[in-house]
Amino acid sequence: MPPPTAPAVILSHPQLGENIGAAVRAMANFGLSDLRLINPRCGWPNEKARAMAAGAGGLIDATRVFASLEEAAADLNLVFATTARERGITKEVITPAEAGRRLRRAAAGEKTALLFGNERAGLDNDEISLCDCVITIPTAEFASLNLGQAVLLVSYEWFKQADATPPAQLEHGPVQRKPTRAELIAMFEHLERELTQSGFLYPPDKRPGMVRAIRATLHRARLTYQEVQTLRGMIVALAKGKHRVRKT
Amino acid sequence: MPPPTAPAVILSHPQLGENIGAAVRAMANFGLSDLRLINPRCGWPNEKARAMAAGAGGLIDATRVFASLEEAAADLNLVFATTARERGITKEVITPAEAGRRLRRAAAGEKTALLFGNERAGLDNDEISLCDCVITIPTAEFASLNLGQAVLLVSYEWFKQADATPPAQLEHGPVQRKPTRAELIAMFEHLERELTQSGFLYPPDKRPGMVRAIRATLHRARLTYQEVQTLRGMIVALAKGKHRVRKT
Repeated sequence: MPPPTAPAVILSHPQLGENIGAAVRAMANFGLSDLRLINPRCGWPNEKARAMAAGAGGLIDATRVFASLEEAAADLNLVFATTARERGITKEVITPAEAGRRLRRAAAGEKTALLFGNERAGLDNDEISLCDCVITIPTAEFASLNLGQAVLLVSYEWFKQADATPPAQLEHGPVQRKPTRAELIAMFEHLERELTQSGFLYPPDKRPGMVRAIRATLHRARLTYQEVQTLRGMIVALAKGKHRVRKT
Repeated sequence: MPPPTAPAVILSHPQLGENIGAAVRAMANFGLSDLRLINPRCGWPNEKARAMAAGAGGLIDATRVFASLEEAAADLNLVFATTARERGITKEVITPAEAGRRLRRAAAGEKTALLFGNERAGLDNDEISLCDCVITIPTAEFASLNLGQAVLLVSYEWFKQADATPPAQLEHGPVQRKPTRAELIAMFEHLERELTQSGFLYPPDKRPGMVRAIRATLHRARLTYQEVQTLRGMIVALAKGKHRVRKT
C-alpha cells in the first residue's frame, strides 16, 4: 500500500504575508506541500511571504487561493481544524500527535488537510462545523501560538509519526571502528600498571575495587578504537612527565 | 519528589532581537522561563525582542547575559546542544522527544539547559565539546529551521513529556448529559416507525439489517441527550412535511 499523501494546509483569511511564509517553511521542513489560502487579507501573490519562505519558494508558486472553505475543502476526505478556543459545541478534540497518527492511517487515495484560522480571531464556528474534529495544541498557561508556530507543531507531529530516527545514537567521527576486547583490556592494563607504579592503586586490598570502578567509568564512555589509542598516548605522556618531575 | 526544574535556554551569539523574542514566546508557551544569552550581537536589552515576545515580557526582564558558554553554563548539571550539522566527532545524538524524557528524569535539584547556536552558523565544535550530547530535530529534506522554531519544538517536547492531555476527547457544549439507553431506544423506534410508514424500510425481509445499520451509524455519533431531542424534532418535522407534500 502506498503511504498516505501528506495533508494539505488550509489557512483561512490569513492577515500577514510573513506568517504565510513561516507556515510554508514549516510545511517544507516536514514534507507537506499543498497550501490553500481562503481569501488572504494580505493579497496574493505576496512578496513578504516569499521572502519568509526562504528556500521553500516552490510551495509559494503552487499555492492555490479559494473564496471559501467549502471550495478549498471540496476534494478532501478528512479535515482537522486547529484551534485553541472553547466553542460550546460537542466535537471531538485531539492532540497534534493523535492527529498525526490519524492522518497516517488514512486510506490510500484519501485526501486530508489541516485547517488553521487567522492570526487575530482563529476559526469561526461555521468553519469548525465543516471539519471532522478539532486539534488543540497543549500548552502551558501562556497559550498564544502564532500561525507559523501552530503549523510547525502540527506538521512536525505528522512527520514524526513515520520518522524512524532512533531516540539516541552515537554519531561517529572519521574512524568509526569499536575497539576489540583485547585492545580495551590492553589499555586497562596499561593504565593500571602506571597507576600502581605511581602509588595511586594503594593499599593493595583496595586495588580490585578501585580497578573495577575505573573500568566501569571507561566502559560508559563507549570508546572508539581511535579514542583508545589517544587515551594510551595520554597515559604515556602523563607518566613520562611525572618521572621527569621526580628526577629534577 | 518535586518535579525537575524546567531547563534553561542558552542562545549563543544570537543576531536578531526578533528571533530572541520568538524564542522567549516559545519558552513561555511550554513553561520554560530561564533565558541566558551569550554575547547577543543585536545588543541587550532589545526592543524588537520585547515586541516579538508579546505577552511573555516577564522572561525578557529576567534574561541574563554572559560572555561565554563556560560562564553561562557554570551552574548547570546537564546541557544538551541543539544542532543540525554533521561534526565528525563521536558524540551521542538524540531526538527532541528523547531530550524531553532525559530532562524530565533529571534528579531534583539538578539544573539542566538547552543550548542553541546563532542564526547563521549554529554552534561551533568548541561549544559542542562542553555539552553532554547533541539534539538533532528530524526533518524532511528541507532542514533549515529558524532559531525560534527550533526552541519551540524542543520546548514542546519537554512540555509534552509531562502533559496528561488525552489523545482524543469529546468537548461538550452546555448540556453534557449522555442519553440513557431508554431515551436512545425511543429515538431509534420513533425513526424506524416513520421510516416504515414512509416505505423506506422495504422489503420486510431486509428490514432487520437496515435497522441495525442505521442504529450503528447513530451510535457512532455518540449523541448527547440534547442531540437526541434535536434529532427527534427533525424526524417529526420531516415526516410532517412529507405528509403535507403527499396531500397536495
